[in-house]
Amino acid sequence: MARILRINMNDLSITEEKPRGKYAGLGGRALTSAVVAAEVPATCHPLSAENKLVFAPGVLSGTTAACSGRLSIGAKSPLTGTIKESNAGGMAAQAMARLGITALVVEGVPADGKQRVLKLTPGGAKLLPATGLKRRMNYALCDKLRQKHGDKISILCIGPAGEMKLLGASVAVTDPEGRPTRHAGRGGLGAVMGSKGLKAIVLDTAGTERPTSAKPRALKKAAAAFAKLLKKHPVTGEGLPTYGTNVLANIINSVGAYPTRNFLQGQFEGTEKISGETQRDTIIKRGGKPKHACHPGCTITCSRIYHDKKGKYLTKGPEYETVWAHGANCGIDNLDAIAEMDRLDDEIGLDTIEMGAAIGVAMEAGVIKFGDAKGAIRLLKEVGKGTPLGRIIGCGAKVVGETFGVARVPVVKGQAMPAYDPRAAKGIGVTYATSTMGADHTAGYSITANVLGVGGNVDALKAKGQVELSRNLQIATAALDSTGLCLFVAFCVLDEPKALQAICDMLAAHTGKKFTTNEFAALGKKVLRTERAFNKRAGFTKLDDRLPDFFKTEALPPHDAVFDVPDKELDKVFNF
Amino acid sequence: MARILRINMNDLSITEEKPRGKYAGLGGRALTSAVVAAEVPATCHPLSAENKLVFAPGVLSGTTAACSGRLSIGAKSPLTGTIKESNAGGMAAQAMARLGITALVVEGVPADGKQRVLKLTPGGAKLLPATGLKRRMNYALCDKLRQKHGDKISILCIGPAGEMKLLGASVAVTDPEGRPTRHAGRGGLGAVMGSKGLKAIVLDTAGTERPTSAKPRALKKAAAAFAKLLKKHPVTGEGLPTYGTNVLANIINSVGAYPTRNFLQGQFEGTEKISGETQRDTIIKRGGKPKHACHPGCTITCSRIYHDKKGKYLTKGPEYETVWAHGANCGIDNLDAIAEMDRLDDEIGLDTIEMGAAIGVAMEAGVIKFGDAKGAIRLLKEVGKGTPLGRIIGCGAKVVGETFGVARVPVVKGQAMPAYDPRAAKGIGVTYATSTMGADHTAGYSITANVLGVGGNVDALKAKGQVELSRNLQIATAALDSTGLCLFVAFCVLDEPKALQAICDMLAAHTGKKFTTNEFAALGKKVLRTERAFNKRAGFTKLDDRLPDFFKTEALPPHDAVFDVPDKELDKVFNF
Repeated sequence: MARILRINMNDLSITEEKPRGKYAGLGGRALTSAVVAAEVPATCHPLSAENKLVFAPGVLSGTTAACSGRLSIGAKSPLTGTIKESNAGGMAAQAMARLGITALVVEGVPADGKQRVLKLTPGGAKLLPATGLKRRMNYALCDKLRQKHGDKISILCIGPAGEMKLLGASVAVTDPEGRPTRHAGRGGLGAVMGSKGLKAIVLDTAGTERPTSAKPRALKKAAAAFAKLLKKHPVTGEGLPTYGTNVLANIINSVGAYPTRNFLQGQFEGTEKISGETQRDTIIKRGGKPKHACHPGCTITCSRIYHDKKGKYLTKGPEYETVWAHGANCGIDNLDAIAEMDRLDDEIGLDTIEMGAAIGVAMEAGVIKFGDAKGAIRLLKEVGKGTPLGRIIGCGAKVVGETFGVARVPVVKGQAMPAYDPRAAKGIGVTYATSTMGADHTAGYSITANVLGVGGNVDALKAKGQVELSRNLQIATAALDSTGLCLFVAFCVLDEPKALQAICDMLAAHTGKKFTTNEFAALGKKVLRTERAFNKRAGFTKLDDRLPDFFKTEALPPHDAVFDVPDKELDKVFNF
Repeated sequence: MARILRINMNDLSITEEKPRGKYAGLGGRALTSAVVAAEVPATCHPLSAENKLVFAPGVLSGTTAACSGRLSIGAKSPLTGTIKESNAGGMAAQAMARLGITALVVEGVPADGKQRVLKLTPGGAKLLPATGLKRRMNYALCDKLRQKHGDKISILCIGPAGEMKLLGASVAVTDPEGRPTRHAGRGGLGAVMGSKGLKAIVLDTAGTERPTSAKPRALKKAAAAFAKLLKKHPVTGEGLPTYGTNVLANIINSVGAYPTRNFLQGQFEGTEKISGETQRDTIIKRGGKPKHACHPGCTITCSRIYHDKKGKYLTKGPEYETVWAHGANCGIDNLDAIAEMDRLDDEIGLDTIEMGAAIGVAMEAGVIKFGDAKGAIRLLKEVGKGTPLGRIIGCGAKVVGETFGVARVPVVKGQAMPAYDPRAAKGIGVTYATSTMGADHTAGYSITANVLGVGGNVDALKAKGQVELSRNLQIATAALDSTGLCLFVAFCVLDEPKALQAICDMLAAHTGKKFTTNEFAALGKKVLRTERAFNKRAGFTKLDDRLPDFFKTEALPPHDAVFDVPDKELDKVFNF
């Protein structure tokens, strides 16, 4: 049943194969990275026919394991030039697992330059013309696809940004309500999908069952234990369910690591107005949903539904990273404006982090002023229209810096830094610098021990201990991203050894193969090695594992900290 | 007398020092690259305070040596991220030599963000406010500076492109008529000058003498021998004086190496209309000058003066590279339109090669159509105005490719390829790939033996022999770029051993130190090693010494050739 489906957009052929050899038994990031590393020439142009776009649900996706609905999407990134795995929640991973698709590999570029829709059903796969869908925004696109293919489908799609092949383009995934609110945002994978002429993938699971597990009873037992542990942990059982990811705004601001106005300050005077607490109050007052699961089986429910002032649906509750990117990073303290930008990003199909960072650099260049919410919204609308300025913004912070002559550009390997200043949270700086993905907080979320006191404590302002912290988290994350489990389960796993055991038990029960905690770590290391080797073949060296110089020379208020983890220490992250 | 002048734009201090230690005795590229390599952190942002902009006349500049008026300008390039030496003719090198300035090192960035003018006179150096000069086009800027500082000055300056810090910005040098027609075009050094708030450097040599030579009589004798040899060689004595550099259009087109429509074809059907022969006829008919020296003492006189249809001065005779970039590469066969674009590039302060390549990629993206001369002119005007589209174009081919999602982008290390397709002239492909400067024909002009039968013959379509050819030329060029001699003397030097001896004799006579032909080669190797080491520290590896994949996979008509010099061979270029 499990199979790898290959869609060749050049000759429109569709083939399938068993996941053999080095692909056998893998899922999620382990599989996308294995395919990209084995099949994509590392020096190819990311928008050329030689690149491949790989979709893979995690090993546990589709099972009863809590929070197992993550989908990994991989390719050579047009934004970073590195290998890329970007993962998202939403409905697609479970649907793909139900359809027995271990991986979907999209190859080639269309000879006729036309856009198509790929439809996946229990009966097979089919490429359809994308008639009437050109430049459709994501919400209208999903409506249109449902009109044609029925209400029960889930959808993977790109907005105008992906069609224009902008470097900040995302791949959207629909949520349980069919809204394109979950995004594989980072690294411009939407542009790769656009280059392949694929506007959308429609998944119809009618009549399917959950994927068969080798030991259903053992799985049930382990899954119950796992869910219980998640409920018990203060972050996954209380903090995230109550306030969502934006619970972090006040916390990160209070420790002076909340990047403000393009990383000029570490605290934002308007944080209170855009915090998770304020967001929750606003949502409740307007009749939105203060809890929401992005896929069935999620027990953390960090998603929410955000209504506008009139009480009408506007967007999902903007995540912490989005609120920061469009908020503090641009000096904007207006939650409704931020929510409008979140909706625009989802509509156009853009990475919210990259867009906020791009607008921040544009503000530093004087294109608009810091704090100008209307101007920021206008810039995003220009991206949707594909004006030249919109294309610049839509290509992210690095291109904005290049075209507007800005030297302070907070990127690593071309990708914008997320919502933690590496000078005041040095562990995340190590992750930004060394991750195989470019600046990426999820690659090794050192905020845990640096700030949250989860999984131990490592002083955020000291260089000591950060490399080891980041290394261990990067290894664990690479493994976790292969299971289909949401990264947020890590808060629990880091504090509770039983939770990791439960994950291994679930993997063993589902696959029927022994899976120890040692094997979990070994899997993470293998994934990282595969990715590092690809990046090396693509021309990356240890000199790319560095933060921009200004983080080492410009002191960040209020701690007046610089990033001072020595280069030699950074070079030890992958010593394992 | 000889001194290195340091201008600190941050604290506005001006200091001077003797050229000591590793700087002693060097000039031109050897000196700019030595300073950049020793003093600029290789990983710094090129527009940050840590970068330095270095101007150095060649060792022979200012002497009676024929064609010795080249000025080297060096920095870390914002376009390529590599070390960069870009050299230009015009009046500045000789003026600087007369002022006893071995090198001018511009450091820091202005704390107040203001623009200034640097005035160099025999009495010293002074920073002046750049009142009323903001966003001035280069011709009007030079007029304005002459009004203030007298008719006899020479000028180094940036147009609006440099002020906007666009990656394609040049540094302009005035010619004997005071026009800003000669440019250090490549690598965006105008953006570095812009980042330092330096709008212009005014050189006033009133009352100065030629730099003193150690053995004036020996110099006179060697210089006479050298000039005679230049006159005798068919390229430097006949071809270039008669037709200028654009003599190459018909030649390169006939061998199928004339990149047409963004490197889609190797021959352009409109070549006859834009050839050197046609250009000469047009110039003569309209009362322009079919011969012109860009600096006193030039015997090759490849420059010319181009008049418009009404017989009025329009621009200098557009060079071969310019005619190609704005012509064949964009499918444009209108010489007047090309001349208008040449003038616009000079006015705005742009590299003509980068601009033609950028517009070619924009045409492939469909921004305007191939052949649309009016559209191309409009795009250049947008660069001058600093519109978003103008900024994209002004940042060169790579940024156009990124913002418009084009996979076929003819750049190496971010810099656009010049007017020779590497598939049909493989020696120049080796130079493009491996040069320390990014794609640069002048770094090792293999067209000599590949096409012109100068310095031997190496089959342009075969991989064999190209690495050795490029290596030897790159070494010789690095040495020649340090003397202040124009690269075009190389045509003679390659065929006539006496010419190299004459150069060495001139160097020895001027400096008073023995200088053998072996030392000439050793100097070239030393310069290349210094530059390679900088690039290595900046993160470049052998994987950056490659052409874009499409040159290896897309066959170029009419020869249906691909670039097939093996990577392993490319890696041997610097084995010396």
